[in-house]
Amino acid sequence: MSGDTASSGPATYPTATAGPVLVIGTGLLGASIGMALHGAGVEVLLDDASRMTARLAQDLGAGRLRAPDDVPALVVVAAPPDITADLVAGALERYPDAVVTDVASVKENVLHGVRLLGGDLARYVGSHPMAGSERSGPTAARPDLFTGRPWVVVANEATRPDAVLAVRTLVTDLGAVPVQLDAAAHDRAVALVSHVPQVAASLVAARLRDAPDVALELAGQGLRDTTRIAAGDPRLWTGILSENAAAVVPVLEALRGDLDRVIAALSQAVADEASGRGAGQGVLGTIAGAIAAGNAGVARIPGKHGGARTEYDVVTVVVPDQPGELARLLGDIGGAEINLEDLVIDHAPRQRVGLAAVSVLRGVGAALEAALTARGWRVV
Amino acid sequence: MSGDTASSGPATYPTATAGPVLVIGTGLLGASIGMALHGAGVEVLLDDASRMTARLAQDLGAGRLRAPDDVPALVVVAAPPDITADLVAGALERYPDAVVTDVASVKENVLHGVRLLGGDLARYVGSHPMAGSERSGPTAARPDLFTGRPWVVVANEATRPDAVLAVRTLVTDLGAVPVQLDAAAHDRAVALVSHVPQVAASLVAARLRDAPDVALELAGQGLRDTTRIAAGDPRLWTGILSENAAAVVPVLEALRGDLDRVIAALSQAVADEASGRGAGQGVLGTIAGAIAAGNAGVARIPGKHGGARTEYDVVTVVVPDQPGELARLLGDIGGAEINLEDLVIDHAPRQRVGLAAVSVLRGVGAALEAALTARGWRVV
Repeated sequence: MSGDTASSGPATYPTATAGPVLVIGTGLLGASIGMALHGAGVEVLLDDASRMTARLAQDLGAGRLRAPDDVPALVVVAAPPDITADLVAGALERYPDAVVTDVASVKENVLHGVRLLGGDLARYVGSHPMAGSERSGPTAARPDLFTGRPWVVVANEATRPDAVLAVRTLVTDLGAVPVQLDAAAHDRAVALVSHVPQVAASLVAARLRDAPDVALELAGQGLRDTTRIAAGDPRLWTGILSENAAAVVPVLEALRGDLDRVIAALSQAVADEASGRGAGQGVLGTIAGAIAAGNAGVARIPGKHGGARTEYDVVTVVVPDQPGELARLLGDIGGAEINLEDLVIDHAPRQRVGLAAVSVLRGVGAALEAALTARGWRVV
Repeated sequence: MSGDTASSGPATYPTATAGPVLVIGTGLLGASIGMALHGAGVEVLLDDASRMTARLAQDLGAGRLRAPDDVPALVVVAAPPDITADLVAGALERYPDAVVTDVASVKENVLHGVRLLGGDLARYVGSHPMAGSERSGPTAARPDLFTGRPWVVVANEATRPDAVLAVRTLVTDLGAVPVQLDAAAHDRAVALVSHVPQVAASLVAARLRDAPDVALELAGQGLRDTTRIAAGDPRLWTGILSENAAAVVPVLEALRGDLDRVIAALSQAVADEASGRGAGQGVLGTIAGAIAAGNAGVARIPGKHGGARTEYDVVTVVVPDQPGELARLLGDIGGAEINLEDLVIDHAPRQRVGLAAVSVLRGVGAALEAALTARGWRVV
C-alpha cells in the first residue's frame, strides 16, 4: 500500500509489514497501530505495564497479549517519552534479530538514552507520527488515526538500511506519509509547530480560571479555537516538554522577547494616554509589527491537502438546527455536482439556528450560491 | 423580534427599532447592521469616510447614502476604536434628538473620549457585538452576523433609560443577546477572552516565519486552530490593543509570569539532563501545574449553545473526498432521524480522503453507528 493509493483506510489494501509486530504500550497510539495492523492480517502482540490496558486493547481488536516465547520481527514502543529509551534498549537486548522503533514525540533524548544504555543502534529507528487526540487510552484508538498524516522517521548514524525500510514500510502500511529527519531537526520542528503552541494555549486558558463568569459569556469561536489543545493531558505534556526542553526553551525565549516588547509598547500607550498624549508612533509600530509577524507566520501553515493554503470561495447558508436540515443542504450541494472543500458549522450560542460556511474551490462559489438559492436556501 | 424566537434571521421577524438609523462606518460591522435593518424594512442611512465604501455598502443592500438634511433617530458609529469617540461626539452634537451608540471593541476609552469632548452622555450608550470575522470590509458583511451572539450594552452614569432601551431594541432586532456591563468590566472581560488570546496567537504564529519548511510540513490541526486568529488585520488590532492597553497589560503580565516559570523549569530540566540527573520534582511539578491550570481554564469556556459544555457522542466515519459523498452521509444521518450537534471534517493532508467526526447527543452514538454501518459506511 502506498501513500498515493491509500484512500479509504489501512484494512482494504495489501500490507507489506512482516510480523509478528510487538506493540509495547497500548494507549491511544499503540492500540491504533495494533488495530490497523491486526485488521490487515498482520500478527500483533500486545504488552503494557498495565495488564488491564493491554487486555482492553486486545478486546478492541488491536491484537493478542504477548506470550513469553513470542519472537517479534518488529517492536514498536508506544510509551510515554520519559520511559521510552529504557523500553527500546530492553527490546533491542531481548530480541536480537528485531528492528525496534518508538513513537515518542521527542527524538534526541530517546536516541541519547538508547545509546547510553548500550542498545544496538543498527536496529533502532526512532519515529514520530504527527497524529493524536486530546483523548487518550486504547478506547480513543482507531485504525485510521494515522491516515494521511506525516510520520517522521529518524535514522541514526549506525542504523542499517533494512531497519529504516522496515519502519518506512510500517508507516506506509498505516496510511501515513514518511518524512525522514535527523533527531535534532525533528525536535526543533515539533518545538515550533506543537510544543510551543501547547504552552501558549495552556497559558492563555489558565488566565480564564479566575475570570468572572460574564467574561466567559462573551467567549467566541476565536477563544475556543485558540485554547482547544489546552485540554491536553498534564502528565503526557510534562513528559514531552521536559524531554524536549533543549529545543523548546529557545523558542519560548524568543516568544518571551516578543511578548516583552508588546507589553512595553502597551504600557507606554497607557502612560501616553494618562499624560493626555495619544499613543506614540513607536508604540503603534511595535504592536502592528507583532500582529503582522503573526500574519506572515500563519500564512506559511499548509492547508488541508498538504499543499500551499488554497483560497476558497465561502458560501454561508442559514440552517435551522433540526434533524435532516444539514443533510438536505449537503444533498442539494451534491445534487449540484459541487465538491465541498470544507464545512464549518457555526451554531449560535443560546439559539437553535446554525450557519453553515461551505468552502468550495475558487470560482465555484457563485454557481453554488445560485444552486442553493434556487432550492430555497437563504445564503447570507 | 425577541432573542427567544429568532431562529432564522432578522428579516423574517417584526422589528421594533425606530428609524431612520444612521450607520457611520460601513465596514464589516456597519454594513452587516445596515443589511439586517434595511432587510427588515427600517430606513438606514449610510456614511463612511470612504465614499466608495459607503456606495459599496449601498449596493450590497445595507441602506442608502446619507443626504445632508436627513435626521436620524438612532446613530450607530461603526468605525475603528481610535476615531470612535470623535465620531460619537460629533453625532451627539449634530443630531440633538438622536440616541448614539458605537460598536467599538473597547468601551472605557471611548466613554472617556466622549466625556472629554463634551458629548451629551444622556443620549450616548456604548455597545460591543461579540461577532466578527478574520475578513473585513462591507463585502464580508452579512445580515446574520449577530444572530445569537452576545452584544454588550454599556450605559454610563448619565445615560437616559430610553436611550438604553433604544440600543437594547436594536440589539435584539439584530438577533443578538444584550449583556449589560459597565465599561471597565467590559474591557477587562474582552482582554481575557479576546485581546490576550489574539496576542498569544500572533506571537506563536510569528515564530513560524523563519521556521524550516519541513517544520511546517509537520503542522497539524492543533497548530491551525491555535493560530487561526493570527490572520487578523494589524491595523484593526493595533487600534484595539492600544485603546484597551490598561486592561490588557495586567493580563499579559500575569501570562508572562507563568511563562517565566515554565521557561525556568524547562531550563532547569536541560541543566539536570546535562548533569546526568533526571529532571527534578519541582521542575516537573511546575510544568504539570501550567498544563493543569490550562485544563481548568478551558473547561470554563461555554459550549456552542451558550450553556455548559455538553459532552457528545462522537462517531467518526470515513468519507471519500468526492462530490456528494458527504451529502450522502448526512442524508443517511438525517434519514435515521438523528440530529447533528457538530460535524468536523478532517481531510488528510496529501490524500483525497476525509474523516467526518459526527457529534450527537450523549447516548445516541450507538444508534447512529448502527444506522450508518447498515448503510455501508465505515465507522472507525
